[in-house]
Amino acid sequence: MSSTEVLRALNYSNINPHVKAAKYAVRGELAVRSEEYRAKLAKGEGKDLPFDTVIAANIGNPQQLDQKPITFFRQVASLLENPQLLEHEDVLINSLGYKSDVIERARWLLKEVKSVGAYSQSQGAPGLRESVAKYIERRDGYPAAPKDIYLSNGASSGVNTLLHVICARPNTGVMVPIPQYPLYTATLAVLDARCVPYFLDESQAWGTSLKEIRSAYEKAVAEGTDVKAIAIINPGNPTGASLPAEDIKAVLEFAAEKHLVVIADEVYQTNVFIGEFISFKKALRDLQKEQPGKFDHIELASLHSVSKGMVGECGHRGGYFELVGFDPEVAAEIYKFISIQLCPPVLGQCIVEMMVNPPKEGDPSYPLYKEEYDGIFNGLKKRAYALYEAFKQMEGVKCNEPQGSMYLFPTITIPPKAVEQAKKEGRQPDEFYCFRMLDKTGICVVAGSGFGQKEGTLHFRTTFLAPGTEWTGRIVQFHKDFMEEFK
Amino acid sequence: MSSTEVLRALNYSNINPHVKAAKYAVRGELAVRSEEYRAKLAKGEGKDLPFDTVIAANIGNPQQLDQKPITFFRQVASLLENPQLLEHEDVLINSLGYKSDVIERARWLLKEVKSVGAYSQSQGAPGLRESVAKYIERRDGYPAAPKDIYLSNGASSGVNTLLHVICARPNTGVMVPIPQYPLYTATLAVLDARCVPYFLDESQAWGTSLKEIRSAYEKAVAEGTDVKAIAIINPGNPTGASLPAEDIKAVLEFAAEKHLVVIADEVYQTNVFIGEFISFKKALRDLQKEQPGKFDHIELASLHSVSKGMVGECGHRGGYFELVGFDPEVAAEIYKFISIQLCPPVLGQCIVEMMVNPPKEGDPSYPLYKEEYDGIFNGLKKRAYALYEAFKQMEGVKCNEPQGSMYLFPTITIPPKAVEQAKKEGRQPDEFYCFRMLDKTGICVVAGSGFGQKEGTLHFRTTFLAPGTEWTGRIVQFHKDFMEEFK
Repeated sequence: MSSTEVLRALNYSNINPHVKAAKYAVRGELAVRSEEYRAKLAKGEGKDLPFDTVIAANIGNPQQLDQKPITFFRQVASLLENPQLLEHEDVLINSLGYKSDVIERARWLLKEVKSVGAYSQSQGAPGLRESVAKYIERRDGYPAAPKDIYLSNGASSGVNTLLHVICARPNTGVMVPIPQYPLYTATLAVLDARCVPYFLDESQAWGTSLKEIRSAYEKAVAEGTDVKAIAIINPGNPTGASLPAEDIKAVLEFAAEKHLVVIADEVYQTNVFIGEFISFKKALRDLQKEQPGKFDHIELASLHSVSKGMVGECGHRGGYFELVGFDPEVAAEIYKFISIQLCPPVLGQCIVEMMVNPPKEGDPSYPLYKEEYDGIFNGLKKRAYALYEAFKQMEGVKCNEPQGSMYLFPTITIPPKAVEQAKKEGRQPDEFYCFRMLDKTGICVVAGSGFGQKEGTLHFRTTFLAPGTEWTGRIVQFHKDFMEEFK
Repeated sequence: MSSTEVLRALNYSNINPHVKAAKYAVRGELAVRSEEYRAKLAKGEGKDLPFDTVIAANIGNPQQLDQKPITFFRQVASLLENPQLLEHEDVLINSLGYKSDVIERARWLLKEVKSVGAYSQSQGAPGLRESVAKYIERRDGYPAAPKDIYLSNGASSGVNTLLHVICARPNTGVMVPIPQYPLYTATLAVLDARCVPYFLDESQAWGTSLKEIRSAYEKAVAEGTDVKAIAIINPGNPTGASLPAEDIKAVLEFAAEKHLVVIADEVYQTNVFIGEFISFKKALRDLQKEQPGKFDHIELASLHSVSKGMVGECGHRGGYFELVGFDPEVAAEIYKFISIQLCPPVLGQCIVEMMVNPPKEGDPSYPLYKEEYDGIFNGLKKRAYALYEAFKQMEGVKCNEPQGSMYLFPTITIPPKAVEQAKKEGRQPDEFYCFRMLDKTGICVVAGSGFGQKEGTLHFRTTFLAPGTEWTGRIVQFHKDFMEEFK
């Protein structure tokens, strides 16, 4: 050990053990290596690499690939950033293609926030929360109140807030779907709380099984866990599945029975190819109407984000959560917690407002908005199916038909020789497969172990965002060679 | 208790006790009430109020008042938001007043981030971190490495990250200056770690007293606290004081002796009226040069932000911290922790880049940049002194000469009758005074108890950001009436 190692205040063994326990594979070692390759290629030093482009298929990050932002949103945003432009309406309209509704929206947003450089209220600017409430009402047919809307620094920040308030003790448990987007398990680890995993059923298009949820709950209770909440990602990540109405009702009934907060992560609500998105809010209100008294005590937190859908504005960090049925004193603690970090990024708040209140039929910007929106949707669907078809050609690979979100999560079969080699290299078999894929093709995906999977199964998650079919061909070829090498 | 109360999963008594313990007065009850008044006035329902405008003098939020953003930054930002505008350079230049360096910078930033709607690397886009490293080198005369720079969602997020990693156990302690910006105590409460307060010396222009630090440390150690870090806000908040070189060296010597991480919150480094800002980084490197071996093991984390200074872009949530001397394994855990929340807002990252790399002499945008920068600085200084002069007229009020930051933190004397009335209303005397001030004048400040103060002293913190002198006149009159009422 060097002399400074001995003398430093901090070393690996004495820092927060809960931070150490947290795992977040989406941006882990594989992603870091892919960025190293990317930097190498950018500097022209990639001659020894067997590929000349790195494809980030690990993160749902559409605009890092070729997805264009929605023109209306960015035109408005440019005016929010530089309000001086509003003194040149004629130039905007006649020379730069801005329509009158762009200018109108920018003026309105500036009236609501004053400046995108000023902190807003911690819960988000009131007028913008009103737009969110109206969106929810239009979507579900039931009202929403601005006071129950909390704009957030992406939905991730909303999840962080909710778990912070809920997780009171080391034996507090939150039910988490497996596979899951690892924000949940990572945050529970940081909070030194318990993850109560419930497995989704791959054979039922990754549906929720109430039997599975109930048995997971009972096992946890038997272990002394105080189960306080159930997280459910709908449409699913990494699975893409949209839950049918009966699954949603079953979860709500279980939550009512066991007094669990329902955390409904609905950020993919507009990425639906098969089936229909039903919000937990609507399902809850329907149940409350059909069976008065039985569901009135349920606490539901529903999250949404500008990062996904056709909006794809990940880098803006905009999202919200709606609190339904929460005790006002608890809501006050939630408010206090978020106020410590002041407020969510104001431009992100404005993108949320535009996401929930986009150009409508009859608005000057509507035709282009619709064309772009539909174009992105159709493009995503096309790529999803192209990748699905490619997977069909791959030996030992099984994939559910694309249902939505931005991901496919195929099952892979790793030959015993490869499993051995993986062990030699100190890696899980699916990790090993993914590292090989990156090293051979430049394509970065995420091993299934990063999301959780049933014992004995292996998967990887890939986005279908990257353009063209050349890269999918690389995967097909890699897989062929891999299976040949280890047969 | 209602039937739903009994049945809900969450209530005040069973949620996270550490969140409940956290206090953050800057956005507390007083601020909430001021927002209620603001909303009332906006709706035209304020006839019963004895004022017709609410002045938010509680939060360092310049652009919520009348401070204009720096034109160069917002022109570039408008192009980052809507890159389509770059296809119309002639219009930008000839009709909209954009200079060529604005266009150049926007093109460069877009090359570095690809899109402000795409997630960047979790540590922030590499090219932008290079700009920060170069700024640090220019400022201090010592090099900085991009790999040690972490862009963050405001400096607040950086503090949150560092404390999360450092606070390993309930008896971990972090030394915090009193008075302090309450992010530190609030975050330590959430982490269930210990605050080790050390009092700043009001009689010495709020300087740090090594005697005080040492005695606070020893008291904590005697109580079983594992003191791991010392936070120091320089220039100070709420005090505005710039630490002289000998104070900074004394803190570093103490940290070296006791093996403490130094967390240097330097967000007000450009808000300096009296004295000179010396960065902890420079002071550390100087010491390492002068006394080889003695200071090599020190870990220093220095934070900066776009929210303060002349930039004032609070709503953009942009900041960074530089890690000096950290164990690479510890840095890896810091990286993992921040990756869970994906990345800082990309536009905020770009504002950081422009803050550290603004137009230079000879650049086309420089004259206006300089004019705006100096104008804001002089305006702030003028307002600070105007407020200071107003305080001189107030009975029992003593205020240190404005030194910097955006705040004044005067001592107030509350007459015994008022202290009694405060007790009757269940409030601290300084809180009581501030509530009365808000109710009578519409001016929202923050009571000294929100920042911590020596026993038996009372203060309030006000910003000097609001324009004009009418509002300061309201405070003077209120104070006169208050002292009369309770004499």
